[in-house]
Amino acid sequence: MDLKQYQRECLEAVDRALDHFLPGEDVLPVNLHKAMRYSVFAGGKRIRPVLMIAACEAAGGERETVLPAACAMEMIHTYSLIHDDLPAMDDDDFRRGKPTNHRVFGEALAILAGDGLLTEAFRLLADPDAGARLAPVTRLRILELMARSAGSFGMVAGQVVDMESEGRAIDFPTLEFIHTRKTGALILAAIQTGALVAGADEETFASLSRYGEAAGLAFQVADDILDIVGDQAQLGKDVGSDQQRGKATYPALLGLEEARQKAVELRDLALAALQPFGEEAEPLRQIARYIVDRSV
Amino acid sequence: MDLKQYQRECLEAVDRALDHFLPGEDVLPVNLHKAMRYSVFAGGKRIRPVLMIAACEAAGGERETVLPAACAMEMIHTYSLIHDDLPAMDDDDFRRGKPTNHRVFGEALAILAGDGLLTEAFRLLADPDAGARLAPVTRLRILELMARSAGSFGMVAGQVVDMESEGRAIDFPTLEFIHTRKTGALILAAIQTGALVAGADEETFASLSRYGEAAGLAFQVADDILDIVGDQAQLGKDVGSDQQRGKATYPALLGLEEARQKAVELRDLALAALQPFGEEAEPLRQIARYIVDRSV
Repeated sequence: MDLKQYQRECLEAVDRALDHFLPGEDVLPVNLHKAMRYSVFAGGKRIRPVLMIAACEAAGGERETVLPAACAMEMIHTYSLIHDDLPAMDDDDFRRGKPTNHRVFGEALAILAGDGLLTEAFRLLADPDAGARLAPVTRLRILELMARSAGSFGMVAGQVVDMESEGRAIDFPTLEFIHTRKTGALILAAIQTGALVAGADEETFASLSRYGEAAGLAFQVADDILDIVGDQAQLGKDVGSDQQRGKATYPALLGLEEARQKAVELRDLALAALQPFGEEAEPLRQIARYIVDRSV
Repeated sequence: MDLKQYQRECLEAVDRALDHFLPGEDVLPVNLHKAMRYSVFAGGKRIRPVLMIAACEAAGGERETVLPAACAMEMIHTYSLIHDDLPAMDDDDFRRGKPTNHRVFGEALAILAGDGLLTEAFRLLADPDAGARLAPVTRLRILELMARSAGSFGMVAGQVVDMESEGRAIDFPTLEFIHTRKTGALILAAIQTGALVAGADEETFASLSRYGEAAGLAFQVADDILDIVGDQAQLGKDVGSDQQRGKATYPALLGLEEARQKAVELRDLALAALQPFGEEAEPLRQIARYIVDRSV
């Protein structure tokens, strides 16, 4: 199995589906839909959709069936980036080498483009045509899971505590609170959604959830490490930008070596969770290795 | 039937339910949940929930069953107010006589409180306990309806075009585009959700939809008129504030007299749509009269 090719195939399928599901740039209000599409198609690596597809396929599900949920997840992720970049939040001018949404469309339209993407994500999850292959109770369960992971118990909670902690000394439990929510919650939800779409039994769902928890945290620890030792191309943002902002990170709290050890432990936990699976979980295994190995 | 008493009963039921469904102020992150609750309990008249309950009861449904959807609707409405008030948008310091969310909690937390409320609204609509009295397909239909009405085809679209039109001469179709979406879409969705919760047949659903379209537009025309001739207490915002901002309004485009005539026509359209109903639609009738009669 070639991970790069797998990722490319997933990315292309997700991008085609996003183009299909998102309102066109000719739909009124034109500027709003342009702003929504600008950030969705700004070069994201589709990590959450790829993980969702890989989890779905590991549990015996079909890629076509999981695409609407994968697109909804990417819309939620994109809205969170647009709002995080706003002047009142992180005040970032660039993301992935491109001007941020509010730099192109203005602050008001950026707020509304984020609102529009978040709302459209839930509309898509409830859309009868897009969800025709899934039982209504399954669609509701996915919807509840995604909303819980994205909202004031999940991603939004992580963002708030991260913001409140900037420039202040924080303890390890606070750091874990931030990371399990700010990035971990959506990654876990992506994996669990993949399992639900595949109709996984409870045991399979539990195994994939363990993988998702470990991989989500590993992703964050690795990102923190790369912020210190990586190059800009690999990271997609300025090296050292977390440090400059006084952001809480694993290396800052644990030291670089212990952070690396933590990443390796999380990778092994993720791999152990996949033990009951065969070949069909190979993409998930390689993703866990890829996430961590580039940082240690 | 005493409309004031009916409204008070509905408002109390909705406020109790909102208090039950919203995360408590002791739930982490404390400031986020305080900010969310601050605006939800800032003295809103619960117009959309009251209309939803009244439509549900007109179609033979029960108040208890519609409360979760009514709360979700009010969360969506509240999020839209928080984001509309932001410095980058309308830059309002006060709403209903209280400091706006960002004036109390800061801009970043206000953005995130809005995001949290929007997300929590959809989570609540998908919550298996809160929705236990409704069939999964009905809950999905309600969810899709609310998301469509709130998103980039509905409320968010109206807000964008309203913003883009500020201080510019606009034509009547543009004014109608703004109002049918910015306020009309959620009001119509409230009525239609009430009908769906009650399990209304197609004919009843269509009648209530006609009522909702007319009442939603009447509400906006009346609000525009009150902005010119009303007193501040009645309006809940500064008299003349639309004019000061160069906002497009019905009186500005049609003249005061023709705007009043339009409001009366819409009221009569709304009442005509309720013709097939008996006593059970009396609250809806009185609301349509109340909306318009205070402005003409």
